[in-house]
Amino acid sequence: MAVNLSEPVALAPVAGVRLGAVAAGIRYQGRDDLVLMELAPGSTCAAVFTRNAFCAAPVQVARQHLASGAPRYLLINAGNANAGTGAQGLTAARSSCVAVADHAGVDMTQVLPFSTGVIGEPLPVDRISAALPMAMTALNEQGWMDGMRAIMTTDTVGKGVSETVRLSGGTVTLTGIAKGSGMIHPDMATMLAFLATDAQVDKDMLQAMLLRCNEASFNAITVDGDTSTNDACVLMATGAAGVGLTDMADQVLFEQALLRVCRHLAHAIVRDGEGATKFITVRVSGARDVAEARQVGFTVALSPLVKTALFASDPNWGRILAAVGRAGIADLDVDRVTIHLDDVCIVTQGGRAPDYEEAMGQQVMARTDIPINIHLGERGTAQAEVYTCDFSYDYVRINAEYRS
Amino acid sequence: MAVNLSEPVALAPVAGVRLGAVAAGIRYQGRDDLVLMELAPGSTCAAVFTRNAFCAAPVQVARQHLASGAPRYLLINAGNANAGTGAQGLTAARSSCVAVADHAGVDMTQVLPFSTGVIGEPLPVDRISAALPMAMTALNEQGWMDGMRAIMTTDTVGKGVSETVRLSGGTVTLTGIAKGSGMIHPDMATMLAFLATDAQVDKDMLQAMLLRCNEASFNAITVDGDTSTNDACVLMATGAAGVGLTDMADQVLFEQALLRVCRHLAHAIVRDGEGATKFITVRVSGARDVAEARQVGFTVALSPLVKTALFASDPNWGRILAAVGRAGIADLDVDRVTIHLDDVCIVTQGGRAPDYEEAMGQQVMARTDIPINIHLGERGTAQAEVYTCDFSYDYVRINAEYRS
Repeated sequence: MAVNLSEPVALAPVAGVRLGAVAAGIRYQGRDDLVLMELAPGSTCAAVFTRNAFCAAPVQVARQHLASGAPRYLLINAGNANAGTGAQGLTAARSSCVAVADHAGVDMTQVLPFSTGVIGEPLPVDRISAALPMAMTALNEQGWMDGMRAIMTTDTVGKGVSETVRLSGGTVTLTGIAKGSGMIHPDMATMLAFLATDAQVDKDMLQAMLLRCNEASFNAITVDGDTSTNDACVLMATGAAGVGLTDMADQVLFEQALLRVCRHLAHAIVRDGEGATKFITVRVSGARDVAEARQVGFTVALSPLVKTALFASDPNWGRILAAVGRAGIADLDVDRVTIHLDDVCIVTQGGRAPDYEEAMGQQVMARTDIPINIHLGERGTAQAEVYTCDFSYDYVRINAEYRS
Repeated sequence: MAVNLSEPVALAPVAGVRLGAVAAGIRYQGRDDLVLMELAPGSTCAAVFTRNAFCAAPVQVARQHLASGAPRYLLINAGNANAGTGAQGLTAARSSCVAVADHAGVDMTQVLPFSTGVIGEPLPVDRISAALPMAMTALNEQGWMDGMRAIMTTDTVGKGVSETVRLSGGTVTLTGIAKGSGMIHPDMATMLAFLATDAQVDKDMLQAMLLRCNEASFNAITVDGDTSTNDACVLMATGAAGVGLTDMADQVLFEQALLRVCRHLAHAIVRDGEGATKFITVRVSGARDVAEARQVGFTVALSPLVKTALFASDPNWGRILAAVGRAGIADLDVDRVTIHLDDVCIVTQGGRAPDYEEAMGQQVMARTDIPINIHLGERGTAQAEVYTCDFSYDYVRINAEYRS
């Protein structure tokens, strides 16, 4: 049921990164649910994490370990979020790092743990430990597709993408995988993304690039406004291609590719959103600053009334207009606001556009990819895009029935 | 399908207020859809209106007229919101006031217009004018029940309540009616409430009391987070009982009664919320200030994941905890947060309560009235309550199918 989304045919290996996926029986049976990622020595690593005050144990541990050293291994399990598990959960997350460290001969702080799955249940560290030798053996550079599938929870489609970028010193590869099909799943907590490149990028630059790209991709999507206890996005650079970002032009090229990869994965999460039947781009322009544009964009993208209208393919401009009006923009001159469905003008001067006829809006609404363009008048030149999906019966079904 | 809500058997007349309800054929056939309320000369009037930047034409006109004089008539129509109608809409709203003024021999600024119904369609002023003589003839003190029913749109139950208050100088009456079954309806815009008393209250005190009571009632409810273009709540005092609020004790007694009436009507709107099967009270305590308590309360009450879990009678504490965590409270110490379902402790110290068993939460969740009590730790002593309903298949159905 994902909206115009299919699994990648293949993912390009990244020199210096090996993945091993195995079935540890954490929650699922008959499928892989544990992934070990190995980074070559000397790799750099950047990450962004959930801002939820109740962040899961693995998030807390990963943050600490990332701050204290150079990660060599990432351990990712699906099926159990290790969230809402208190002090026991922290111990469990650390124990799983220790298990990897013992097998691999590294320090435990060089292991980053990630979990996604049900909240509030103890992490079965014994099963993870038991599966680790197999995961070590399975490590290989071609492991991305298997890794991508092993981190899925209620995702219906595996999410991954590769790019190659020609820089002045040679060509580098960028591959990313992600999981998540709601900003927070019922109890499935939630979005994880792992991106790697064989380019040589120092840690500070890597983190700065990730922050910027994250803002325009993973931080610009919403399925239901709920953010997870476990969200994490990691960007790794092995340097194994022997190609650095030597000048500004290289940096721009690389960051553009990074943004495309992040956007692809972020959009994939929305396209596979719970119950989604449409993919919506809310583009807000004429804003004083980006924050203001995002504020309006998210208010529209989060409105249950707008989202149910999109599900019904109903060009219900009154709901969009009302959402813009309650977005909390100080001194908004409503008479200067215009709203287009793709290129069909539906609202001008605070009311229905004079030439607008319902059939015109209907044509846009009948599509599966729908752009809503909102211009706030000449407040400024800032703009932003926000991505969301519609709100269907299936959203309620999935979230009401999940645990029954 | 309203949750534990039935129509009042009767409403007490308020000396000095007469209502006339008639069928003007604005949108509905075979039912009343136009109400004229008449206030005795010398009455005072307080009001609060929507904060939506796209406020409807009647809201703009009512605000102006209220500022400029002493209202004698309220004209309320159901079926057409006169919102998103631009300059034409303003003209239409003013024309309807002129029509009342001509019939009644008052100034047009003494007439307040209110509309609820479909957004973006021209108000049929001719039908309203045509029905006015009948409405004038119908005016009577016993008209509250008819008025209550005539302002309904997609409401399934009429909403009204009366109280009498014994003050030092005698007994006064307070009667209120309201309509609305979503903060904003599909295109049905939206919440209107009209309250009247025969007590003698000056305008400033009336407005101050309404503001305070509104904050703890109509401003403490949410069905879907969408606020309407037409929301309005009016409080009128005719003074016809010849009883004033002579001392502080009288003021307190009267304001307590006003709060009960406002709460009753606000709760009725939630209980009749679109697709509602449960009524939820989110009580947040231990907050630094009321704003912080409300912020947490609304984040929980608006979470689609919490609301679908409530629909499923699923004691899914992970979703409540995650919503508290993302409410944006600075330096929240999650280890001191406790969450109860009624009196069942489900979360302590950032995780599942040690003694908690699913069956205990299930028992509370199986009810139709569910209290969620959240204590933020010892941040302060402020508290607030927020009221909401669950999120069901019917919410999606009502909002997706409304215009088809």
